[in-house]
Amino acid sequence: MKNIAFDVMGNDNGPKFAVAAAKNFVSKNPNFKIFLVGNKEQMGDVKENENIKIIDVREEIDPSKGVLAARDSNTSMAQAVKMVKDGIADAIISSGDSGSLLSISVLQLKRIKGISRPAFMPILPTIKGDNKTLLLDAGANLVTTSEMLVQWAHIASIYASEVFGIKKPKVGIINIGSEDKKGNDFQKEANEKLKNSKLIYKGFIESRDLLNSIVDVAVVDGYAGNMVLKTMEGTALSLFKVLKDELTSSLKNKIGALLSKSAYKNVKKRLDYRNIGAALIIGLNGIAIKTHGNSDEMAYMGALNQIKLAIENDVINKIKGVV
Amino acid sequence: MKNIAFDVMGNDNGPKFAVAAAKNFVSKNPNFKIFLVGNKEQMGDVKENENIKIIDVREEIDPSKGVLAARDSNTSMAQAVKMVKDGIADAIISSGDSGSLLSISVLQLKRIKGISRPAFMPILPTIKGDNKTLLLDAGANLVTTSEMLVQWAHIASIYASEVFGIKKPKVGIINIGSEDKKGNDFQKEANEKLKNSKLIYKGFIESRDLLNSIVDVAVVDGYAGNMVLKTMEGTALSLFKVLKDELTSSLKNKIGALLSKSAYKNVKKRLDYRNIGAALIIGLNGIAIKTHGNSDEMAYMGALNQIKLAIENDVINKIKGVV
Repeated sequence: MKNIAFDVMGNDNGPKFAVAAAKNFVSKNPNFKIFLVGNKEQMGDVKENENIKIIDVREEIDPSKGVLAARDSNTSMAQAVKMVKDGIADAIISSGDSGSLLSISVLQLKRIKGISRPAFMPILPTIKGDNKTLLLDAGANLVTTSEMLVQWAHIASIYASEVFGIKKPKVGIINIGSEDKKGNDFQKEANEKLKNSKLIYKGFIESRDLLNSIVDVAVVDGYAGNMVLKTMEGTALSLFKVLKDELTSSLKNKIGALLSKSAYKNVKKRLDYRNIGAALIIGLNGIAIKTHGNSDEMAYMGALNQIKLAIENDVINKIKGVV
Repeated sequence: MKNIAFDVMGNDNGPKFAVAAAKNFVSKNPNFKIFLVGNKEQMGDVKENENIKIIDVREEIDPSKGVLAARDSNTSMAQAVKMVKDGIADAIISSGDSGSLLSISVLQLKRIKGISRPAFMPILPTIKGDNKTLLLDAGANLVTTSEMLVQWAHIASIYASEVFGIKKPKVGIINIGSEDKKGNDFQKEANEKLKNSKLIYKGFIESRDLLNSIVDVAVVDGYAGNMVLKTMEGTALSLFKVLKDELTSSLKNKIGALLSKSAYKNVKKRLDYRNIGAALIIGLNGIAIKTHGNSDEMAYMGALNQIKLAIENDVINKIKGVV
């Protein structure tokens, strides 16, 4: 039996979607047990069984407390992370405040030896079939060094080959242009280092090509990475909104939209971030996943499936074996 | 008569779209004269008249020469910019290398007093009607100070009120979160300065909200601004590609798409960057506009219309009157 600690608090809509996803996930994966960590009273109707267990924790993380929030060991987030540290769970998932989850995870799980700083690593969809691109760092580190970019390139490559089965993952550094002379010093240094590494390194890439599956691993400083991720999300949402708007603007358009319904469904399925759902905090001595604060059941299912792959492929030990 | 110097070289597809747009534009705006600057032999069939004049310049800018490229006064780009400096033209438009155009424009036209560094300023479409958002800097400056953000906020506000007629333009700083504590020092400093300014300042905003028309002016360092712009562009293009893909995947989908044709046209019209087309180099003592290297006639028309508004509203003098 594999075990997941699920901090169900910190979602904009309360714990209901987390609970629903947990039930759904274990029904499909009976070899998994999920610990629902949080305020039991808010969880609604949950029947405990060998796959679902409630850990009733009434205190929730308060990110306004800053660093102190992460040092409070009584919150549902801290309790859930501790279960991984104590070996009770194999992974922790939370929608709570990113900064707090990062601090708590680093404090309790520690970094993998050789990794200076963990990174947020979402899995981006691409327009080429089932291909995906790992983006890191999506915002864990405001300041990034060339060493960090190089380390991330290595560990994400291991992830791509172990979890996605890509034998020789292609790596790129996101920059404001593809020529070697472009960008900041830390990027130019990392560019040279990766050229001389054993990775399949494609040089600088531009964020406009990210969804075209030109690389399997795209490394970037956390500041720009966060902007890139949020811009993608916002642009896709805005475009879908305008499309809906226009398709419902006349009867003719409505009939057309109805006929092409399956096409829209497929577009959303192919490019909706909720199918991907979550950012792994990579570089930690354990599996920790941060999900969107507005995650719904589908988003949580995506994250739980990501956890499943990471656990079943023993990804942390694979990384440790190399770096 | 208003005059525009059009560097027609540097487009991926040769000068044909520039020439077509110039003809089209002057036919609609007989009070404008366009100087087509570039290799006459490549321009195709152009009849000179009182609205169209050819300046035959055979040398093209070679960005691989780096700083030297900008110092070569014989290129079509340099010649076109010089026409503004010499008072022959009221504005210069070029699809050539961004860095070279920036250098040449700063060298020849000089900065407006009080502006430390010019910025690339594209006009973003939004999902709210005809509202637009000015984004700056989209990549002229890799390193940005708080003073630069504050200066850009001021000059872009003048642009928004003079050109778009927005009485009290709303300003925001793009950051990785909306809380005051987020981001880099230069952002936090600019945040405080803008709070104490006379501008309508909305604080930190996130790039995911940019297309929602939450501000009229969004300032950001050139590094992140460039990433944001390219991510938007790439995400929109990828989404349209997937949509087209799916809508042509079956007969039923095709029929639906045909019925909803006008809806798609409107979506593209509302969010396609070609309707907006170009980035003004703001902060210069003159109007200079950089257009995409793959601009088509429609993109150039957008840029020429933008130039028209800037000239007719005497925007450079309005800025000079305030900063």
